[in-house]
Amino acid sequence: MSSEFRYRRVVQFAETDLAGIVHFSTMFRYMEEAEHAMWRSVGLTIAERDGPFGWPRLSAAMEFRNPLRFEDELDVTVRIAALKTRTINYEFVLSCGATLAAAGSIICICARKQPDGSMRATPIPADIADKLRAFVKS
Amino acid sequence: MSSEFRYRRVVQFAETDLAGIVHFSTMFRYMEEAEHAMWRSVGLTIAERDGPFGWPRLSAAMEFRNPLRFEDELDVTVRIAALKTRTINYEFVLSCGATLAAAGSIICICARKQPDGSMRATPIPADIADKLRAFVKS
Amino acid sequence: MSSEFRYRRVVQFAETDLAGIVHFSTMFRYMEEAEHAMWRSVGLTIAERDGPFGWPRLSAAMEFRNPLRFEDELDVTVRIAALKTRTINYEFVLSCGATLAAAGSIICICARKQPDGSMRATPIPADIADKLRAFVKS
Amino acid sequence: MSSEFRYRRVVQFAETDLAGIVHFSTMFRYMEEAEHAMWRSVGLTIAERDGPFGWPRLSAAMEFRNPLRFEDELDVTVRIAALKTRTINYEFVLSCGATLAAAGSIICICARKQPDGSMRATPIPADIADKLRAFVKS
Repeated sequence: MSSEFRYRRVVQFAETDLAGIVHFSTMFRYMEEAEHAMWRSVGLTIAERDGPFGWPRLSAAMEFRNPLRFEDELDVTVRIAALKTRTINYEFVLSCGATLAAAGSIICICARKQPDGSMRATPIPADIADKLRAFVKS
Repeated sequence: MSSEFRYRRVVQFAETDLAGIVHFSTMFRYMEEAEHAMWRSVGLTIAERDGPFGWPRLSAAMEFRNPLRFEDELDVTVRIAALKTRTINYEFVLSCGATLAAAGSIICICARKQPDGSMRATPIPADIADKLRAFVKS
Repeated sequence: MSSEFRYRRVVQFAETDLAGIVHFSTMFRYMEEAEHAMWRSVGLTIAERDGPFGWPRLSAAMEFRNPLRFEDELDVTVRIAALKTRTINYEFVLSCGATLAAAGSIICICARKQPDGSMRATPIPADIADKLRAFVKS
Repeated sequence: MSSEFRYRRVVQFAETDLAGIVHFSTMFRYMEEAEHAMWRSVGLTIAERDGPFGWPRLSAAMEFRNPLRFEDELDVTVRIAALKTRTINYEFVLSCGATLAAAGSIICICARKQPDGSMRATPIPADIADKLRAFVKS
């Protein structure tokens, strides 16, 4: 069984810059959009309204191979490289048809909102971990 | 005494699009940045942390005259065309040197957060109105 | 026959602001996305690679009624209120289910790139006007 | 002599997300803004109008330590960790007062526009390399 989630969407005009290609900061947004779509695909949401959890990013990285352009059909595949007690390591591949656009990763941590508004790292709730396990790379 | 507030900043690369000019949606952000800088200039903030008030927009409009490009030095002037019980009508002019880039307006309303998270229109607090009066067009 | 084009998409996390709702400048991007999807639906593109035409905005305006939130399913309907020799007046309605989020308009002008890189207003090519006529409000 | 360039600016409202903090993708834009300001500080521009060169990113990465919030005064320091024949390795530190917000890196490559619109890697012109040398980490 494939553990990969696939997200597709069209590159929008406002996402391009004067070089005629998608701005590199937007490529990080594409990774996040795919992550959130993956959560929705198993009935989860990364940002439950008034919910106790948040998922701040610890790190994010990308290697860029080929530019994306306006109206390109972008595919983002997501896998979970590691699902740990508190953290999730995602891996992403962005492509347009047979052309690799970029590969990247995001590590996020499960955090619980404290009464003073700050966030404290906490174990990922079991029901969430169970659902995300479908995407863990085997 | 001039009632005009002036905000200056440089056009950033990521704000341009494939046409080589600043995307029109970003011009609305420039207006907002100038509005918020105006508030700061009299010791106010539009978003007090855990504060009871919010300032949702009722409307926004712009006419575009000349494009802005990467590294242009942008000037935004702000005036308050009308300071009413609950609403503020802002007027903005965006220019680069002697060239008019755009003219626009935003109307926002003072709203108080309700216990259920919704917002309800409320009169602008007197201490805020007093400070903003300096920018009301005479 | 309906002359309305409908565009649907989900509100993304990065499109929200600290007030927990979609930033008003992003609502202008939603209008543009719907416009460009409408063009694609009749085999056109607003930005042909190395093509001679551009479609700069003359004006844009919106009235905001209800906030949009993360993961809302947004519908944007587009109509052409006026298709003139050189300009197109678009009208947009943004809604989420039965709730009206905003209504707006954009006027753009057909421009031809000059050898010096500037743009000059020019009549809309007949083949483009013919295809867009399907969306003109009757 | 310090080889460090410092860029300062205020966090804008539209750069925050529903978690009340600056969206992580925007942190990559902050790095780029600082890079471009560094270039301007020695009389260079990363995007000369109709110039033959471009500077596509090969990679970008960040580690996030503490959130940035609306109206925080952000400092970005930039250094060049390696200035090679074709590539520049930048290192960035983002902080707000004494608080470290994030540390990151970008690698970009000098590319020359080809007649067909594509880009081909090329040695960094000597006059540009000479000016950037001031920022190379010693």
